[in-house]
Amino acid sequence: MREWIIGRNPVYEVLRARQRQVFKVQIAAGVQPSSRLNEITVLAKERRIPVESVPRQALDKLDKHHQGVAIETSAYRYYAVQDILQKTTQAGKPALILILDMIQNPQNLGTLLRSAEALGVDGVIMPLARTAGVTPAVVHASSGASEHVMIAQANLAQAIESLKVAGIWVLGLDAGQASHPIEQVDLTIPLAWVVGNEGEGMRALVRKSCDLLVSLPMTGKVDSFNAAVAGSMALFHTVMLRRMKAV
Amino acid sequence: MREWIIGRNPVYEVLRARQRQVFKVQIAAGVQPSSRLNEITVLAKERRIPVESVPRQALDKLDKHHQGVAIETSAYRYYAVQDILQKTTQAGKPALILILDMIQNPQNLGTLLRSAEALGVDGVIMPLARTAGVTPAVVHASSGASEHVMIAQANLAQAIESLKVAGIWVLGLDAGQASHPIEQVDLTIPLAWVVGNEGEGMRALVRKSCDLLVSLPMTGKVDSFNAAVAGSMALFHTVMLRRMKAV
Repeated sequence: MREWIIGRNPVYEVLRARQRQVFKVQIAAGVQPSSRLNEITVLAKERRIPVESVPRQALDKLDKHHQGVAIETSAYRYYAVQDILQKTTQAGKPALILILDMIQNPQNLGTLLRSAEALGVDGVIMPLARTAGVTPAVVHASSGASEHVMIAQANLAQAIESLKVAGIWVLGLDAGQASHPIEQVDLTIPLAWVVGNEGEGMRALVRKSCDLLVSLPMTGKVDSFNAAVAGSMALFHTVMLRRMKAV
Repeated sequence: MREWIIGRNPVYEVLRARQRQVFKVQIAAGVQPSSRLNEITVLAKERRIPVESVPRQALDKLDKHHQGVAIETSAYRYYAVQDILQKTTQAGKPALILILDMIQNPQNLGTLLRSAEALGVDGVIMPLARTAGVTPAVVHASSGASEHVMIAQANLAQAIESLKVAGIWVLGLDAGQASHPIEQVDLTIPLAWVVGNEGEGMRALVRKSCDLLVSLPMTGKVDSFNAAVAGSMALFHTVMLRRMKAV
C-alpha cells in the first residue's frame, strides 16, 4: 500500500532513515527555498527518486500542513518483538522499551514516538488492532522521528511475557491509589514502561501482566497528565536517573 | 466578552475553580448520563446557573468535541506577575514558575498548563500579544487545568527582571551547544523555566535575560522534543529532584 507523508521534517526523516520504499517527492511550485528543502532534494537525487514540481493546490488536497513538500512511500514496515529484544542485548546498557496500550490520538502517538526516539529507547510495542498505527498523520506528529525507532505490533500480553522471560521488568503507568510512587522504584534495571489509553488507561489484562504499577507525582487539583506527556516524563526520568547513577 | 467552553472535564473544572463568571450550561438532549455530567448539574444548580437542554446540533456548531456539554462564561481573568511572586513567598517551598515565550499551538499551550497545574507550579507567565492566550481551545486542551493555575500576561523581559529581584533564577530551555546539561544544574533553588516557540525557541531578548541556558539529554537521530513535552519534562524533573532531596 502506498501513502503520502507531508511536511519538511517528516519527509526529510523518511529519506534519511531509509526504512521505506520511496516512489516520488512532490514540491509545491514557487515555494520559499529552505535548507531543509535543499537537503530533501539532494537526498532524493542521490537515490534517483523523482522530484516533481506541482501546483500548491495538489498538495493542499493531501493536508494543509504540507509546508510545500510531500513524499509517496510504502507503508511503515513493523519490526518483531524479537528484533527489539535482540537490540537490547546488543546495546550494552539496561533495556528501555515503551509499550503503548490503545493510544487513540495520532497526535499523542506521534508525540510519544518522538520522545522515545530522542531519549534512545530500544523499541516501541503497540497492539495489533483497533488502535492508531504508524499512519502518515502519526509520522507527521512525530516530526519524522517514527522512522528512526523500532516499532513492533503484537499481542501485548504475549509480548509482555517475552519481555519478562528476557529479564525485563514491566512497569505500568497508572495514577491509581495502588500504584508505587515513581521515586520509590529502581529505574536503573532493564525495564519496559506501559502507557494506557488517554481516557481509560491500560486494559485489565495488560494491567494484570505488569510486574508493578507506578504513579507519577501529582499535586494539583486536576487528576491527570496528558497521556503522551505522562509517558514521555516516565521515559525521561528513567534516562535521567541512569545518567545520574553513571556519574 | 463571553465565550463558550466545551467538554465534560473542562466544563466541570470551570465550575469547580470559580474563577469566571458563568452565564449558563447547555447539555445535549438525549446524551448518555455520566457521573461527570451529574457533578456539572449539581455544581451549576448550587450556584443557580441555568442548565438548558438543547439539541445536539446546537453544540455541534461550537465544536464537535463537546461531549454533550458546554458552558458560557466570561473571558479568562489574568493575574499579575506580582500575584504569582506573592504566592511563592507564602508557599513555604522553593518557587517554581513557568514562562512561555510565544507558544503558538493551542494544544501545546493547553498541555503545558495541564502539566504545570498537576506538578504544582506557582504560576505561569506569558507574553502580552501575538501569542495564544487562554482561549476556549486552550482550556479544552488543558482538560480544564487552566482554571486552577495562576496565569499572568506580561512583558517577559520586565517580568524576568522582577523574578530576579525576588531571588528566583531564570533557566531557559535551549537545545543549543552552549547550554548546560540539565543533570549539572541545581534545580532545588527557587527557579523559573522558560520554554520558547515550537519552531524558533525563545526570542533573542528573552534568551539573553535568562541566568542560564539548559538542555535536555537527546540521544536519538531527530534533534528535538515537542515543545510542550520538553517544558513538561523540565518541570517534572525539577519536582522529582526536590522530592528526592527531601527524602
